[in-house]
Formats: sequence, C-alpha cells, structure tokens
Amino acid sequence: MSTPHYLSSLARRSSDPAISWLMKLTLDQPHLISLAAGFTDNETLPAAEVGALVGELLRDDATALQYGSTAGDPELRKLTLDRVCAQDGIAPGAALAADDVVVTNGSQQLLYLLSEVLCDAGDIVLVEDPTYFVYLGICEALGIDATPVRMEPDGIALDDLQRTLQRLKDSGALGRLKFVYLVTYFQNPTGWTTSFEKKREALAILRHYEAAAGHPLFVLEDAGYRDLRFAGPDTPSLKSLDAANERVAYSNTYTKPFATGIKVGYGVLPRPLVRHVLRSKGNHDFGSANFNQRLIALALRSGVYDRHLPKMQAGYRRRKERMGGALTKYFPPAAKWQETSGGLYFWPELPASCNTSHDGAIFRAALDAGVLYVPGDLCFAPSPLRPKPKNCMRLSFGGTPSAQIEEGIQRLGAVLRSQGM
Amino acid sequence: MSTPHYLSSLARRSSDPAISWLMKLTLDQPHLISLAAGFTDNETLPAAEVGALVGELLRDDATALQYGSTAGDPELRKLTLDRVCAQDGIAPGAALAADDVVVTNGSQQLLYLLSEVLCDAGDIVLVEDPTYFVYLGICEALGIDATPVRMEPDGIALDDLQRTLQRLKDSGALGRLKFVYLVTYFQNPTGWTTSFEKKREALAILRHYEAAAGHPLFVLEDAGYRDLRFAGPDTPSLKSLDAANERVAYSNTYTKPFATGIKVGYGVLPRPLVRHVLRSKGNHDFGSANFNQRLIALALRSGVYDRHLPKMQAGYRRRKERMGGALTKYFPPAAKWQETSGGLYFWPELPASCNTSHDGAIFRAALDAGVLYVPGDLCFAPSPLRPKPKNCMRLSFGGTPSAQIEEGIQRLGAVLRSQGM
Repeated sequence: MSTPHYLSSLARRSSDPAISWLMKLTLDQPHLISLAAGFTDNETLPAAEVGALVGELLRDDATALQYGSTAGDPELRKLTLDRVCAQDGIAPGAALAADDVVVTNGSQQLLYLLSEVLCDAGDIVLVEDPTYFVYLGICEALGIDATPVRMEPDGIALDDLQRTLQRLKDSGALGRLKFVYLVTYFQNPTGWTTSFEKKREALAILRHYEAAAGHPLFVLEDAGYRDLRFAGPDTPSLKSLDAANERVAYSNTYTKPFATGIKVGYGVLPRPLVRHVLRSKGNHDFGSANFNQRLIALALRSGVYDRHLPKMQAGYRRRKERMGGALTKYFPPAAKWQETSGGLYFWPELPASCNTSHDGAIFRAALDAGVLYVPGDLCFAPSPLRPKPKNCMRLSFGGTPSAQIEEGIQRLGAVLRSQGM
Repeated sequence: MSTPHYLSSLARRSSDPAISWLMKLTLDQPHLISLAAGFTDNETLPAAEVGALVGELLRDDATALQYGSTAGDPELRKLTLDRVCAQDGIAPGAALAADDVVVTNGSQQLLYLLSEVLCDAGDIVLVEDPTYFVYLGICEALGIDATPVRMEPDGIALDDLQRTLQRLKDSGALGRLKFVYLVTYFQNPTGWTTSFEKKREALAILRHYEAAAGHPLFVLEDAGYRDLRFAGPDTPSLKSLDAANERVAYSNTYTKPFATGIKVGYGVLPRPLVRHVLRSKGNHDFGSANFNQRLIALALRSGVYDRHLPKMQAGYRRRKERMGGALTKYFPPAAKWQETSGGLYFWPELPASCNTSHDGAIFRAALDAGVLYVPGDLCFAPSPLRPKPKNCMRLSFGGTPSAQIEEGIQRLGAVLRSQGM
C-alpha cells in the first residue's frame, strides 16, 4: 500500500511496527507457540485483588470516575516519589519533589513525550545496541537519528560511548545530541542489567562533553523491568546519581509487574523538563485515566501491590527456569546466552553465519514448526557504521503459557539443528 | 521562566494551556465557585454500576488485566461501529467496518493523532470561530495555522467557509489545507449544534476545492458532546454523509456521558488514514488501557451504559435549567445567549464594549466575588483577519455542584451590573 503524499513528514517517515506483523502471524496461526510477545504472565494476574480494590475505591466516593489533572493524581505522584526514593536510598528534597513526577499511559508514553519535547528531526539520541525495538519506531517517526552504542552484559560499553561522543564532537554533530536512552534493568531484548559503576561512569562521560554540546546531555533511564527482579540484589538507578535532579529522566511502570491492562506508568523528570512534558501531555490527552491512577494509588497505599510482587516474581522465576532448562537441554552447544535474574527475556546468540532474520531460513522453519520468536535484527538501530547483527533472537518467557515453554524451545532447538547448527 | 534553547521546535512553540492557570486559580481559592471547568456531573457518576461491572468482568477471566492491541479491543471496536451506524441510520459494509475504528485515550488523543499524521508545521486547519480551546493548543504545538471560520448557532457560516477556501486558493495556500475541525454537537464553547443541511453543504464546498488543493480535504468531526443531549432530536453525523468512508474522521467518547475518569474515546476513520493513525498510536502508547476498554464493552453489551444515559441526561437538564433560569433572572438585559438542549455550556455575549478577558476588569471583579468563568477570547484562534472578540464568556453547568450554580450566576450578574452593564 503506498503512502499518501498529503500526510505529514512524521507519518511519511513511519513504517508499520514489527509488532504488527508478529501479531498478524500469531492471529493467522492460532496454534503457534509464541515466544515473541512481550506479554506478561496471565497466570498471576491479580483479578480478585483488583475487584476488591475497585469495590473499596468506589464505596463512599465516586470521584475516581471524574477527570483528573494532566500531571496525574496527587496522591499517586507523592507515593511514586517516596517509592523511587526508597528503592534508591535517597531522600526527597528541594530538588526532587512530587511535582517532578508525571503519570503517563504506561511508561511508553513518557518515552514518546520526552523524545518529542527534546528532539527535532535530525537530532540524535544514543541507544543501546541492541535496544527496545518500539523505541526505534519513535525515533523513526520523529526523524531522530538513533545512534547505537555497543551493549555488554553489564550495560553499554563505556569505550564505545566515549568514542561515539568524540566522533560526534569531531564531526560537529554533538549539538544535535539530546540524550542517551538506556534500558537499565533486565533490558529488552537482552535481559542484561546495567551495573551501578557503569551508570556513574556514563554520567561522568556525558558531563565531560556538555560544554562541546552547548546544552545538558540528558539520560532517559527506562526502568520498566526493574520490579520484575526475581533473584539477586537491586541496583540503584541513574536517578540516584542525579541529586540535583537535572540530568536523568527516570521512567517506570506500575502495571507491568501488576496488571498490564491497567497501564499506569510514570516519569521522574529533571525540573526544567517537567512543564514542557506536561504541555505536550496536555495536548495529547490532558491526563491519563484518573480511575486507573486512583486504583494503583489504593493498591500501593493498602499494601495489595507490594503483596502481589513476590507472587508475580515467583511466577516469572519458574518460567525463566523452565526456559533456561529447556535451552540447555535442546539448543545446540554453539548457541550462547546469559542467565538472567529478572525481566522477560533470553537473548541467545548463534554463530555469526546463522541468519535469524524474518526473511531467513531459520525464522521460516520455526514458523513451519509452529514457533514464533522476535528476530534479533529488529532490535538494532540502522547505522552506517556496522551491519545489523542477524544471529540473535529474543525469546520471551513472560506471556507464553508455561506448559508451552519447553515444547516451544524443543521445537526451536530442532529447527536450529536441522539448519546445520 | 524562560524556555531552554535545546528543546524541540514543538516544545518551543508550546505555551502553558489556559486550563493550567484556571486550575491554579481554583486551587488557590478553594471557596471559588467555578463555572469554568468542563468537568462532568459528579452527582450522577455510576459508582455502583462500575463496581458491579468490574466484578463481572473479572469473575471468570483475568484477561482484561492483560495488554490489548494498539487499535483497541475487538469487541469494543465492533460495538462502536454498530452504535455509530445505528445512531446515524446507516449500515456497516465494505467501506465502513470495525477495522476503521481506533480506540483512544479519550477523544482528545484522536484529535492529536489525526493532526500529527496529517499536518506539518505551516499546514492549515480550518476551525470554528470560536472553537474548543484545547484544540488550539494542539495547533500551536504542531505549528498548524488554525484558520477561523465564523460560527453561527446552526454551525459554521457557509459563506465564510467558501470565502476562506477561495482566499486560500487565490493566495496559493490551499495545498497546505489538510482538514476542517468541526465540533458538531453542543459545541464547546457555544453549545451550538451544526444542522444536517450545513453538514451536507460544507462537505460539498470542500469537495469543490479538492482539485485545487491537490488532495482530499478531510473533516474531523468532534462529536464528543453528542450523547449529552437532553432534549430535541439527534442530528445525523457528517460520517453519515460519507458513505464511501473517505473524507470524514468521526470522533466521540464513551466516558464523557458515563464516567470521565475511565477515559475511553474513539475515532471512526477514513480507510486510508487508519494505518497511519495506528502507527502513530503505536509509538505514543501501543494501545489504550485494555481494562478500561473491556469495562466499557461490557457496559455496552450488558445495557448498563444505555440505562445510565437518561439518568445522566436528566441531571444535565436540571443543571442547565437552573443555570438558564439564573441567567434570565440575574444577568443584565444587554447580555444575549442561546438556549441549548445538550452539552455543558452557555455562551453569553455581552455588548462589544465589555471586556471579559483574563486581564480585564470583569474577570478580576468576578474573581473578587468568588466566581470563575472561561474568558471567551481563549476560544478564538489567533488571526490577522480580525481581533479576538473579548465580549463572551463560557459558563459550564456540568461540574459545578448544582447548589452553587444559581449563587454563581447571581454573583456574576452583580459583577456585570457593577461594571456598568
């Protein structure tokens, strides 16, 4: 289908997201085992808890059914600030207050709003290589040059960050760099978590280049998987290193660990950006659904939310162990992957000669075997500096019925072996 | 506060919305009687109904708490198509199907998405004069030239529409015109409804100029107040005149007449625009909260929604009668207004010498008397062709506690008389 000439440049830049055809494949083949969807675990959804919360929420007071404000429910913003501070071992204060919290339609909307408010077409955002592929769609639509920085199991490669910044400086492009987008916990797609040391170093490196950029170089920290941690210690956020609240935009979601259908996310933003994000949010929808926000605030205040987390985490731990065990059992020895202690994904890397892309033999054979995965190349930004790696796959243990995980991996392992691995 | 130089042009074009300072005034003076807010009626919010619906929704099936799709819940899209067709006395068919329905975060998000997908900075949208002031904020942010067409009690002035189009054609600007934005039912701010004859004529006039424009000239029909009709017959939509589904984007909301806190709106879109709006929606938030959509679908399917409408409408009729009676009793005879049979607003016009603007004596005296209204000049697009009229005010009978409506109008009437009217 051709793109009409009268559309905006934003619309003409945009293409159908990968998720569209992945979903279409799923719908066309209902018996497919999908290891592709980033869906969350249906088996631990808190149906009874939500029902009870709604009853309590509406018992004496219908105002949760009334409009809220653009920035979000005041109680939820306050609880969010307290929660982020408690997780990070920092204290609210003059520089970091509930007014710096903006409630959004999932954390995805915060990614869009921040990008829209900071970037014109032609501006640059540094992204992890690989990165969250839906964010690459935002960059495409807004005309942002998403410039990849190599990803390692403990976060972006600092030498590549340094080199990339220097290259931008040398070519006179540093003024167009607006921020770095980092998915710092159990990253989508790799499952890797950025170490605290790398967070500190990355901020320092960015600071060093600010004079040459002529403006602050922000970090957008996407912590959307932080609370899906089922083992090991938590890592403090980049926000915890930004005591003056002037460089790090921190985003997270309440509903990925609780009930994705309720869709309440938030950003904790550097003070100078708050009003601009709010203006944009006002134009987009003048505020997220008040009902959902009041519901989440009540879930937090009542303890229901925190009591749910360990159940959800235990569910993911079981699914992850099932998938990890199946990978060891059925995947050929040439496939390599990291263990993960949170999130939704494994990211097996195959020998460089393998092609997992959607137009390659492995993907086709997997479909024929009734298994769907996310081809890894979708998660790499286009770049003139390297070809997109085509030898990875994103496998989700989040939404697949747990009984199908082993069967799906077994079939996929057989496909890989049949393709000569 | 100055605007940082590193923001995007979108952010630098944007200003704080009027609603921000109106809300701030309300918060600063909690005893203020606000006739300004476009809030809906707290007294008829369906708290018990929503509680029961949630119980039913989650009883045997938790999937309402799982992610949905970008376009929206399939059942809700189907019910929406059927409902719009039934209201308009038309039939679904090959040209108009559930796939043309997109569910959004209130109808506001549809306004933003459509504008973003069709317009670059410098493009033109024709708007009613006066129009919905939040839409003017979208135009400001996107750099759209919102060009006013005179509004009359039965819809836009066709002679002015014709003249405006001819002027754009003569000046070579017609190629930059993308669509006409019409609030066709109980318009915000005037309360006026566009007649069916005017809808037909407006479409014909637009068609006439398409060859010169070089592309389709769309209409964005905002029917957000259609179901807040408490007397008189319904009017078929512009969509009913677009049998081929190729020119009219129709938007409405389920939650303004039901529970604004749940915030579910939709668009019924010309086929060629659907995929582009969906791509943009995918980037914004990859779908509205599934829980809210499933809740509204159940409210529709079960009849709860339709049983609520007459209660809600009766509530607004009482409020409207209270405000209308008070206006007659307390406002000076020089003030003129139209009766309305739906929506939330009266729009009194004062003699041309009066200044209702936020920096004028009347607004200040009203605040001193403890009453807030929306200054009418906020609802007029900036234009070199006429000064903004400053002699109107938007008075809402929607959200004010009904006991305060008469008191508010009485005080406002006294202010007008004290200012020499």
